[in-house]
Amino acid sequence: MGKRLTKRNEDYSKWYNELVVGADLAENSGVRGCMVIKPYGFAIWEKMQAELDRMFKETGHENAYFPLFIPKSYLSKEASHVEGFAKECAVVTHYRLKNAEDGSGIIVDPDAKLEEELIVRPTSETIIWDTYRRWIQSYRDLPLLINQWANVVRWEMRTRLFLRTAEFLWQEGHTAHATEPEAIEEAEKIMHLYADFAENHMAMPVIKGTKTESERFAGAIETYCIEGMMQDGKALQAGTSHFLGQNFAKAFDVKFATKEGNQEYVWATSWGVSTRLVGALIMTHSDDNGLVLPPKLAPVQVVIVPIYKGMEQLDAISEKINPLVKELRSKGISVKFDNRDTHKPGFKFNEYELKGVPVRLAVGQRDLENGTYEVARRDTLTKEVVPMDEIVAKIEFLLIDIQTNIFKKAVDFRDTHITQVDTYKEFKKILEEKGGFISAHWDGTLETENRIKDETKATIRCIPIDSEREAGNCMVTGKPSERRVLFAKAY
Amino acid sequence: MGKRLTKRNEDYSKWYNELVVGADLAENSGVRGCMVIKPYGFAIWEKMQAELDRMFKETGHENAYFPLFIPKSYLSKEASHVEGFAKECAVVTHYRLKNAEDGSGIIVDPDAKLEEELIVRPTSETIIWDTYRRWIQSYRDLPLLINQWANVVRWEMRTRLFLRTAEFLWQEGHTAHATEPEAIEEAEKIMHLYADFAENHMAMPVIKGTKTESERFAGAIETYCIEGMMQDGKALQAGTSHFLGQNFAKAFDVKFATKEGNQEYVWATSWGVSTRLVGALIMTHSDDNGLVLPPKLAPVQVVIVPIYKGMEQLDAISEKINPLVKELRSKGISVKFDNRDTHKPGFKFNEYELKGVPVRLAVGQRDLENGTYEVARRDTLTKEVVPMDEIVAKIEFLLIDIQTNIFKKAVDFRDTHITQVDTYKEFKKILEEKGGFISAHWDGTLETENRIKDETKATIRCIPIDSEREAGNCMVTGKPSERRVLFAKAY
Repeated sequence: MGKRLTKRNEDYSKWYNELVVGADLAENSGVRGCMVIKPYGFAIWEKMQAELDRMFKETGHENAYFPLFIPKSYLSKEASHVEGFAKECAVVTHYRLKNAEDGSGIIVDPDAKLEEELIVRPTSETIIWDTYRRWIQSYRDLPLLINQWANVVRWEMRTRLFLRTAEFLWQEGHTAHATEPEAIEEAEKIMHLYADFAENHMAMPVIKGTKTESERFAGAIETYCIEGMMQDGKALQAGTSHFLGQNFAKAFDVKFATKEGNQEYVWATSWGVSTRLVGALIMTHSDDNGLVLPPKLAPVQVVIVPIYKGMEQLDAISEKINPLVKELRSKGISVKFDNRDTHKPGFKFNEYELKGVPVRLAVGQRDLENGTYEVARRDTLTKEVVPMDEIVAKIEFLLIDIQTNIFKKAVDFRDTHITQVDTYKEFKKILEEKGGFISAHWDGTLETENRIKDETKATIRCIPIDSEREAGNCMVTGKPSERRVLFAKAY
Repeated sequence: MGKRLTKRNEDYSKWYNELVVGADLAENSGVRGCMVIKPYGFAIWEKMQAELDRMFKETGHENAYFPLFIPKSYLSKEASHVEGFAKECAVVTHYRLKNAEDGSGIIVDPDAKLEEELIVRPTSETIIWDTYRRWIQSYRDLPLLINQWANVVRWEMRTRLFLRTAEFLWQEGHTAHATEPEAIEEAEKIMHLYADFAENHMAMPVIKGTKTESERFAGAIETYCIEGMMQDGKALQAGTSHFLGQNFAKAFDVKFATKEGNQEYVWATSWGVSTRLVGALIMTHSDDNGLVLPPKLAPVQVVIVPIYKGMEQLDAISEKINPLVKELRSKGISVKFDNRDTHKPGFKFNEYELKGVPVRLAVGQRDLENGTYEVARRDTLTKEVVPMDEIVAKIEFLLIDIQTNIFKKAVDFRDTHITQVDTYKEFKKILEEKGGFISAHWDGTLETENRIKDETKATIRCIPIDSEREAGNCMVTGKPSERRVLFAKAY
């Protein structure tokens, strides 16, 4: 507290790190690339989990749990899959420690070497499809709609709190279907579900689309994604849903008997969102004063700060506040009455501003006399005086209004950060000066995609689902193009 | 399905394994010692989690998340702790795979060896206390009451589904306090909370007590536990809560400034329950027909099976059932209307009996005419005919009555399986012929405890909290003893 944050326009990246640590969301641990998610940050993730879990179950999915470890031979079974993950695998090679004979301390026991190394799951397609072989015999066993909440490990070299960590928390859905269209429908359904969650709960507008071949998940036929736009003009991939074809069914020999009695390979999808969403949430809404949280995901929606001298005044305030707290809670609103006497009101105001609590009430002796509260909203930083008998309705209104307002603000920002360009020169200029999404024609080749990436660091974020076909010419090669794609620098 | 379970009195262990697999709770995976928790088994664990999480939060605890990996040097800092866990640690030594140069496949890249090995957490005291050093400076930062839901790995050589697996899911609470009495109070509070959960939600009676020194958690000053009694006369440790003294604070140098301005080491507790509880739940209530679930933890509390010929009859039944399902759900009762036409009613009856659904309704053409349902309860396997207009009240009654009844049954079983003995000869006889808890005098030495264990396989399960002091003589050595302790063979 006390110390102000670096401003976003001075150093966005520094602002982000200071905010994550200052608002008590997370911090780096003593383990390279692994973070500690602190209670306040974890409470946001729990809110996200609860809502997503509800949405998954409502669409017929069930939760299960599969092993943390994947035998090396499993990971190797799908060629492009292992190719994609081999470079960042944490490998378990031994199963015991012992005291060194020379008394120098604890060492890995060389006699306890595993016959086959185990990989800490970077994702679970292989161990799950090895299991599905036992679960699926007939069309009656399909579809199989399973989700798992889990930790995964990818040995990233450059890590950032929430955005890219060696270990992260996520959910991974793995579904099995009898037909190709049904699997594609599932992958698309989840993309829409993710977009619904992002927009209606995180208040983060996203663009839905498909990835180019080079950006696809290792082992997928098609990768659907949702892409958000952060305040520094960089895009963030917030969720992906993959149509896996029969790749994993073939690698793990998962066949089913059709109604007609034939044996066919099963069709698959997988999809996931992770604690990265917390990073996206932070970067979409927060300001130079700290976090701005959408009411639907705020661990504390309303904080009440008493302003008093002596216990007698505090007692008088508490007498007024306790029934209010009770009433708000009965309406499902999470309220904190911060009556700590170890900190001054000004300190508390700063703390809740930094922590992004949507609505703040202050109440002192004069308010009691006037029958009013001072109400501040975090998104606009505006204050007003509200009569006590109107306060509950006011708070209910504010929680909805703040959710709507920050979404609208984010949509406006995103919309003004989509620029259509027709030349590569213009493309570079916009990328340099303005950032954001750039909508341009591309010839569809990996070669051109890589050239653009090498020269500008921009990647194709997606081929938007909602975009219309439009004949044009690739901005780089001039070759014909059927539709525009979205480029951006990205997290 | 189809095939009956082995009977409990024929082979209890075989019965257990068949039941876990047959009721779709869990199965072994391709990874040694690691299980796959199937959707139905996971749904029971989710119900347990939801209730425990509510209880933890109600008592002031917050969730957070700490890294999966623990640097070897951290684990080594508390001497007795590493001694306790060294023999069963999964060790990560490398962070990359690559293609073998001879084309033989994927190998661990020898160039990607970690400077310091990482241990997959067997428990998190060390990484958490390394973190607490940064979080705790002053008495104002205390108490710190934190819980984590996580997976942990202990490389057990002999594993059994739910009861003992290399990887398991659990919660681990880690609290920090300014004083010794406060930490002891916390450890005891959690023991009582666990007992409350076991008895009032799992319907499993438990005995609360403390462990002898040899059975204590590695690094604890005192271990509190709850012990259940399974139907085969073996005890099962269902939860432990540890008073850790200042051991970890000293190992990780965690001091705080007292109100008076002195620097003192922080006092600690840790406590956990795991997916082992699912095994305890199964073994406490189930019978030769399958699972028996307490209504409070049953994923499906009521199943409705239509008995019909042709779509017309099913439609008539559905018309009656759909509003009933809606009404029950509005009361928070989980209901499944199993209208699958791929399976016969008899098959469904067997399936739900095996899966332990507490209440089953059957409804056919004749019931419609008579305005009745056939209602079966899983615990007693009895059936009765209930008028339609009384069905909701009947179901509400049954869900409470089954919960009460199976708890009472388990208490009766447990109480008749506590035997007081005064001689070692009698002890051995009871252990052999009857099993259960044996209450006996013991001289308090490790030597005698070990001798009894070696000769009979019985261990001291706990020194019961509620037991009264009673002067006596050790059944083995004749030396004086102040109170009886509880022995049993155990899981």
